Amino acid sequence: MFPRSFQKLIDHFSSLPSIGPKLAERLVLYLWKQDKEKLEDFGERLKSLKNNIKFCKNCFNIAENDLCSICSDKKRDRSLVCVVEEPLDIIALEKTKKFNGLYHVLGGSITAQNNKDLKISELKNRLKSGNIKEIIIATNPTTEGEATALYLARFIKPLNIKTTRLARGLPTGGDIEYADVATLTGAIDGRKEM
Amino acid sequence: MFPRSFQKLIDHFSSLPSIGPKLAERLVLYLWKQDKEKLEDFGERLKSLKNNIKFCKNCFNIAENDLCSICSDKKRDRSLVCVVEEPLDIIALEKTKKFNGLYHVLGGSITAQNNKDLKISELKNRLKSGNIKEIIIATNPTTEGEATALYLARFIKPLNIKTTRLARGLPTGGDIEYADVATLTGAIDGRKEM
Repeated sequence: MFPRSFQKLIDHFSSLPSIGPKLAERLVLYLWKQDKEKLEDFGERLKSLKNNIKFCKNCFNIAENDLCSICSDKKRDRSLVCVVEEPLDIIALEKTKKFNGLYHVLGGSITAQNNKDLKISELKNRLKSGNIKEIIIATNPTTEGEATALYLARFIKPLNIKTTRLARGLPTGGDIEYADVATLTGAIDGRKEM
Repeated sequence: MFPRSFQKLIDHFSSLPSIGPKLAERLVLYLWKQDKEKLEDFGERLKSLKNNIKFCKNCFNIAENDLCSICSDKKRDRSLVCVVEEPLDIIALEKTKKFNGLYHVLGGSITAQNNKDLKISELKNRLKSGNIKEIIIATNPTTEGEATALYLARFIKPLNIKTTRLARGLPTGGDIEYADVATLTGAIDGRKEM
């Protein structure tokens, strides 16, 4: 139905997560109505996405240089490392402005299938330096994230490094009435004296 | 927080309809993990989107040549023209395989602000040819679409051309209990003898 070059672009958009074929059609039609300059810039940046961005050699966050902006920041506390699954988790944590240490991006969580690509041995190497006093495990509060956290804690604790995990509890703005059992259980377990 | 080239691409994605900043971040991170060849192709097709595609000279559908694939199809019934707002409406109607005429894309509906770009005078020119026996008005079942349909009917009818409008009623698979008042009113008004 669509001209071929149109359809090819629709296919590219539908291959992205959260974008179905209908939305892909709408997006391409919308883009087609935009200025040529905007499309040129969009396309050029897509083409060069992998050229400019690499993994930070220390923490595996996305970076423009060998070290990411966090690892190369002299003001950050190098004795504190927060372990996350993905670079986007860093963005979320940085927005809180509550953490001034470094990060370590695993690249996912432990699953039954493929754990080879996870940066676990790289984390072990960082721990060997002896400068790290606390590891905050910030894997997702899911079954896989939980399993990953337990696995990490098992080899970090014997090294006499303080190992903590982000608190479980009620999300701010939430409603106890609608909270699920696992969340409420976590909130009761982690209750604090007032 | 993100490297600059990353952020620029996120901004491009967030400028698209239905894509918020969070999803844009996820999309760019996902794309970054894809093969370089895929990104090159995606980017190149975006850049050349406007080069290969133009408006059909007859119906203003998207086309790779002067005429779109429908207008250049000799088997289609040239006495029947279906007026739609956007090219995507043609895709939806074509999927029904119930219509074998030609189309006319208005490029939107009549609004209070800007009606200059609508292809209404071009529709009038097509009507003058004298070969058209029926116009099916398939503008959206919204206030603007309805106003557009009434406006079109007012100048088509005096030309002694049969003018019809897509039926209003209950959508297939819907639930009378949850149907809104306007839909049910349309369904009652348009009821058919069994």
